[in-house]
Amino acid sequence: MPKIVDHEKQKQLVAEAVWRIIRKEGMEGATVRKIAEEAGVSAGSLRHYFGSQSELLAFSMGFVSQKVKDRISGLTFTGDSMEDAQKLLYEFLPLDEEKSAEMEVWMAFTIKALSDSTLKELSSRVYEEMKMAITLIIDTLIEKSLAKEEIDRDAQIEILYALVDGLALHGIMQPNQVNAEVMKRSINHYLGSICRY
Amino acid sequence: MPKIVDHEKQKQLVAEAVWRIIRKEGMEGATVRKIAEEAGVSAGSLRHYFGSQSELLAFSMGFVSQKVKDRISGLTFTGDSMEDAQKLLYEFLPLDEEKSAEMEVWMAFTIKALSDSTLKELSSRVYEEMKMAITLIIDTLIEKSLAKEEIDRDAQIEILYALVDGLALHGIMQPNQVNAEVMKRSINHYLGSICRY
Repeated sequence: MPKIVDHEKQKQLVAEAVWRIIRKEGMEGATVRKIAEEAGVSAGSLRHYFGSQSELLAFSMGFVSQKVKDRISGLTFTGDSMEDAQKLLYEFLPLDEEKSAEMEVWMAFTIKALSDSTLKELSSRVYEEMKMAITLIIDTLIEKSLAKEEIDRDAQIEILYALVDGLALHGIMQPNQVNAEVMKRSINHYLGSICRY
Repeated sequence: MPKIVDHEKQKQLVAEAVWRIIRKEGMEGATVRKIAEEAGVSAGSLRHYFGSQSELLAFSMGFVSQKVKDRISGLTFTGDSMEDAQKLLYEFLPLDEEKSAEMEVWMAFTIKALSDSTLKELSSRVYEEMKMAITLIIDTLIEKSLAKEEIDRDAQIEILYALVDGLALHGIMQPNQVNAEVMKRSINHYLGSICRY
């Protein structure tokens, strides 16, 4: 029987090898040679899957965001808007080992995107998607009359989005201080402050 | 007359050369060869000033935080706690071209610190200093009875700190959307929400 190679799976294994290197050595460790070595493939087969190093990094970055989206698709929402808001927001935070690893890699790609136009495009797209999710949360709380009447919708969208990303950054920088409990408490405290109850 | 070399000034010029490279090419561009070229000095004289590349990067990172501290030392506070809080918080945000450049470099170093123990130490120290500044702001608002009685001090410190760093991150990622006006409005809106007026 001929060997069946699942190309998408192979690319994902390479993407995860890139993540491991970034976590160990930082973005500057992610050379073609080291990636091939970490993924256990030849540099030639890397070139088969990815046209350039930039393309490889973009795939690897996109795969982080895909994993988060897959997790969110798998969530079961209860219809309790406050509970659902918490559940969704928690997915954007490094609350466990796996999410912390993803967040570290995501932040490294986000900073790299400042000087890489291919990554920049993806970074902007995900920024917009996240902002849509945050907007949905605020709008739902307003529509369901859970939010205080006097809150400024647009300002709260900016504030909540910045709060989530700031907590995520602190969560990976200072995991002992800004642990899962602190991150959750901050989110819940914020939600409480804009809601009536 | 013998040539007088101001060693500290020389080191600072090298640090700024590192910043320019990081902004253009990302952290992985910051090789000894490129830094020497950008700073207009020989690799030999770089080695004279810095024992290792890690030491050079640490100095360059520390010099970002020093510039922010110098600016804060130069601020004139009015005694109006709300105005003073705004003034101090604005110094942590990329509100103009110069501060945006510093913030980009600072974030790149912060992420690099996740896989570099020398930078990690500095990153943790600055995290603590920032947290002290944020704590001072919240405590002053409480002491002066400007803050609402029901606010949770510790939770608000975490929230304000995360808000500031989240806005800073968004400000460099999406400068057209999260511009100076949006950042200031978010900060003022937050301060308004925890205060009585």
